[in-house]
Amino acid sequence: MKRAAAILGIGTDHVYEVDPDESGRVSAEKMEEKILYCQELGFSVFFVGITAGTTVYGAFDPIEDIAIICRKYKIWLHVDGAWGGSALLSPKTKHLLQGIDKADSFTWNPHKLMSIHLQCSAILIRHTNILMQANQMCAGYLFQPDKHYETSLDTGDKTIQCGRHIDILKLWLGWKARGHQGYAEHIETLLEKANFFYEIISKREPCFRMVIKPPFINVCFWYVPPSLQNIDQTSLEYNERLDKIAPRIKERMMTNGTMMVGYQRLDHHPNFFRAIISNPATTKDDIIAMIDEIHELGHDL
Amino acid sequence: MKRAAAILGIGTDHVYEVDPDESGRVSAEKMEEKILYCQELGFSVFFVGITAGTTVYGAFDPIEDIAIICRKYKIWLHVDGAWGGSALLSPKTKHLLQGIDKADSFTWNPHKLMSIHLQCSAILIRHTNILMQANQMCAGYLFQPDKHYETSLDTGDKTIQCGRHIDILKLWLGWKARGHQGYAEHIETLLEKANFFYEIISKREPCFRMVIKPPFINVCFWYVPPSLQNIDQTSLEYNERLDKIAPRIKERMMTNGTMMVGYQRLDHHPNFFRAIISNPATTKDDIIAMIDEIHELGHDL
Repeated sequence: MKRAAAILGIGTDHVYEVDPDESGRVSAEKMEEKILYCQELGFSVFFVGITAGTTVYGAFDPIEDIAIICRKYKIWLHVDGAWGGSALLSPKTKHLLQGIDKADSFTWNPHKLMSIHLQCSAILIRHTNILMQANQMCAGYLFQPDKHYETSLDTGDKTIQCGRHIDILKLWLGWKARGHQGYAEHIETLLEKANFFYEIISKREPCFRMVIKPPFINVCFWYVPPSLQNIDQTSLEYNERLDKIAPRIKERMMTNGTMMVGYQRLDHHPNFFRAIISNPATTKDDIIAMIDEIHELGHDL
Repeated sequence: MKRAAAILGIGTDHVYEVDPDESGRVSAEKMEEKILYCQELGFSVFFVGITAGTTVYGAFDPIEDIAIICRKYKIWLHVDGAWGGSALLSPKTKHLLQGIDKADSFTWNPHKLMSIHLQCSAILIRHTNILMQANQMCAGYLFQPDKHYETSLDTGDKTIQCGRHIDILKLWLGWKARGHQGYAEHIETLLEKANFFYEIISKREPCFRMVIKPPFINVCFWYVPPSLQNIDQTSLEYNERLDKIAPRIKERMMTNGTMMVGYQRLDHHPNFFRAIISNPATTKDDIIAMIDEIHELGHDL
């Protein structure tokens, strides 16, 4: 969001963040407070961006509640569903995006959760023709209006880039191959694997510790080697030492060539692993092997 | 350029255009005049964008001369070589980009003239590390600095988009397959075909008329049906009627399914065809057949 503001000339100082709760969600109350705060500072608040499936936790902001606030203050509501938007594909998970029909715009990346190759990103906008109004420059040397067919189908003048690879074809083919039912099962299978992963981690305490209970399919956890298990978890020493564990284990993973699992800090938490199973062919044995390997690579640290 | 200015928050009113000459080139003198004009208006001129291979004519602005002006006034010089940048690949055409080593930035699309599939766009910037300085937001949940290898190789924090398809691999493979010599011959072959095209058009007057002598491989011409050949070329009637010919012929091409050749207006010129042979397998017979087909489709208009 800050990078977009920098590029658009709005400036990063004019992006105001709303603190999420412990589960990574932004509440409608906090959103309204921040809007009022910005208005008191004398700013016109015109855009609110929330997330359906945050990068690290996979948390979903409450779209319906925030949409009501945005309509009250006449603010454009954008939902970044790049990661979690595909939860709409299963009747069992689509409640996570309750209220998405009230958003003004919605980002959704089929290349993330729908097994479509990079890159395939969609932006859906409620307001007909607004991309044309915002982007068109009517360059007569590029776009001819005097064609014998419907020129509204020409997309070049609606987009930022003019020439683009036809990324949507991959999605169309994927959807033809799997169908609605196939994609619903795809999402549900991934969710089952995340739940299984979570159960195993919980059973492996104290060597493994969850960061939060997974809101979706992101499994965020620490590996706690025996040398740290008797140290007070609230101490500075514990946090400083735990922060170094995930990078060391990842280095060993890469050196050994066994696997790769990303790690990061977030909020006040030291570095932790974020494991996401997006390949439905992954078995329960694979997940157990992955957890065993982390223990194998990290228990002497 | 105007679209970029709109997106960046600079505003289209702050883009000042410099008129090209009849061959589509912007002279250094006119550029300096415009810079001085803008400064007199009280503006700080910080960016000059010129073109190496314009979209329609394939004209090359004089980079060397304009670079001298830009250095004099401390202005960033960007050269858009999306189309014509590949002229650098042949010793016979690289003079067209004389002075490119003095540009601050250079756009080049291998997907245009190097037979690489859409999309493959490069931007080359003289100033080391400037993309990182301009774009990085140091999002700790995305980019970890504590890796065991050189993190300067991570590109995510230097670009506008974070996740991208690896478009450069196609170029690398293409270059491995053809080599420097192969690409030099590729460009020279296309140039020969353009010259042949130009000769045929010249021989087919008055049914065909060139718009300008090709500066590169773009062949811009009118088809003039017999019904127009006896009308004064400077008259309004001639120009209005000629303007409708190319769209009608293109419609017939598409309806018949024989071929597609783009057309457009430019400057004060009514609609004309712009033919570009970018496939080196095209034969002289193909080119003659193409010209014959246009005559066949248009002579009764």
